[in-house]
Amino acid sequence: MDNSNNEVTKVLEQYSQEINKEIKEVLSTIEPASLKKASIHLTKAGGKMLRPALTVLVSEAVGGNKKDAIKSAAAIELIHTFSLIHDDIMDQDEVRRGLPSVHKKWGEPVAILAGDTLFSKAFELVINTKVDGTSLGNESFERINQTLATVADACVKICEGQAFDMGFEGNFDVDEDQYIDMIFKKTAALIAAATKAGAVMGGADEKVIKAMYDYGKLIGLAFQIQDDYLDVVSDENAIGKPVGSDIAEGKMTLLVVKSLAEANDEDKKRLIEILKLDDTSPEHVSEAIDIFEKYGSAQYAYDVAMENVENAKQILEILPDSEAKQALSLVADFVVNRQN
Amino acid sequence: MDNSNNEVTKVLEQYSQEINKEIKEVLSTIEPASLKKASIHLTKAGGKMLRPALTVLVSEAVGGNKKDAIKSAAAIELIHTFSLIHDDIMDQDEVRRGLPSVHKKWGEPVAILAGDTLFSKAFELVINTKVDGTSLGNESFERINQTLATVADACVKICEGQAFDMGFEGNFDVDEDQYIDMIFKKTAALIAAATKAGAVMGGADEKVIKAMYDYGKLIGLAFQIQDDYLDVVSDENAIGKPVGSDIAEGKMTLLVVKSLAEANDEDKKRLIEILKLDDTSPEHVSEAIDIFEKYGSAQYAYDVAMENVENAKQILEILPDSEAKQALSLVADFVVNRQN
Repeated sequence: MDNSNNEVTKVLEQYSQEINKEIKEVLSTIEPASLKKASIHLTKAGGKMLRPALTVLVSEAVGGNKKDAIKSAAAIELIHTFSLIHDDIMDQDEVRRGLPSVHKKWGEPVAILAGDTLFSKAFELVINTKVDGTSLGNESFERINQTLATVADACVKICEGQAFDMGFEGNFDVDEDQYIDMIFKKTAALIAAATKAGAVMGGADEKVIKAMYDYGKLIGLAFQIQDDYLDVVSDENAIGKPVGSDIAEGKMTLLVVKSLAEANDEDKKRLIEILKLDDTSPEHVSEAIDIFEKYGSAQYAYDVAMENVENAKQILEILPDSEAKQALSLVADFVVNRQN
Repeated sequence: MDNSNNEVTKVLEQYSQEINKEIKEVLSTIEPASLKKASIHLTKAGGKMLRPALTVLVSEAVGGNKKDAIKSAAAIELIHTFSLIHDDIMDQDEVRRGLPSVHKKWGEPVAILAGDTLFSKAFELVINTKVDGTSLGNESFERINQTLATVADACVKICEGQAFDMGFEGNFDVDEDQYIDMIFKKTAALIAAATKAGAVMGGADEKVIKAMYDYGKLIGLAFQIQDDYLDVVSDENAIGKPVGSDIAEGKMTLLVVKSLAEANDEDKKRLIEILKLDDTSPEHVSEAIDIFEKYGSAQYAYDVAMENVENAKQILEILPDSEAKQALSLVADFVVNRQN
């Protein structure tokens, strides 16, 4: 498992330099200096680069020219970064990627602007595919247009997902379908946009474009569910935050949704009490984890994540064999094999 | 003057119904309900519709088909609304267009999301020009991409302008060039994008597209400078806020910049003292206005606004005669003739 994760790290990092070059370049002209620094801050903090790597990998897997996909890949990473900056303001999170969050360091007004700037720059980047030259002729206008539509659609969904997530706080009637729809919008939609953008820029036909969107959606769902799962089964060193943080914050996760659906009245009442606490002790966290255990909710979440990954890998069969296709299969496995 | 303003109101309102229909439709699918309501809030509060009307007027003036420009016009209005929502959060303004501001009514997290959603929907709207059919064939992809590039560029500038504006607070060394660059980015860039988008969607050649951008930029600068001017010469009933609000808030305006450049040491010191006050009395406001008067700063601002308008009208001579061209000339006059 460790070996294949190392392999995936290599796969994800192979385009990092080119993608970061695009990001650095498009952000270099921002002024004044405070806005520029705030906008660049998280892009230099070393994210996984999962989303942009997926864009390039899919474009290669459908037979496209990498050159045409790099700017769209960088744009997807900027959209991800924009959403992190605004989410951190909304959730009052003070640390991100081991650094102070943007609003913590520059204040909320500049953080709102930095997010908005990255958002705008993402669209600029996709459009610049044409300006800077592609392997395509005028056909590229249509592909760029479809990619922009894909990105805009994902942005609306990210906002909707965050609004649902905030609305779910303290609402213990959320069922599994509602939960899955929320994480689709909040997390999976951008990963699906990343894979779709790769297919579009790579010149795939509509059937393959749709398949690649579905592949991205499925691994995106698995990614978020695995996050829910790791919160209770991993150890603090691996995930970089205390075990059970989601419980302490009273967050809605698939483990909570499943437990509330399955538990007897007493356990359900107790779990809700713990989730509502403002000051959650390690004992409370253990108690909640025991309730998850009793109803097999952690295992259930893992199984759902795994099933999504298996379905995602099945979808890849539409592609001809290639190194990029193999890499996409590895990435799907990584989503449930990762420890953080 | 009143008659021509009535005429302009008619000109600006003639496309309102079609533009509002597009806005209503593209926002109708937002969920959950709270996010939808927050996103729609200001769009129903009756703005001037100056920017979207300019887009349609320019498209007609360059011989385009109105149908191709309506969605881009609506998109420009959404970008304007997005920036108002985020600016109100940053400036802690509680009233907008006579209504509670979005963050006042729904809280900052939802207001941040509502702004982000309108931003995304603006791009979606422009792209939908193709989806819903245009008078053009595949050529429309190129025009749509150029319009999206225009909108994205304006969005970056709006963020930069707001960042400069915030940075100018308490900085009394700002010179006129820096001030003009700030208001270009903060206010004029979107008006320039509105007129450019009309030219692009209307199929104008590069020379005319550039001219229409410059026309929009000039009336945009005049618009902001006239705002500065009206703050001290208008009466409360006409502008809907107390006379001298900018002075009370210590805002940088062309009147302040000019006075600080021209005043003797004593007046300069006193003006800065007043601008720095947290609790500004009507007597302080009068005193500041007396200093403006002494150095002819209000008249200077009016003259600069007027000069920009004259230059803007000169630029219109590149267009063939038409009703739309006449309307554009009226709009330019309106910018300095309006009382609020």
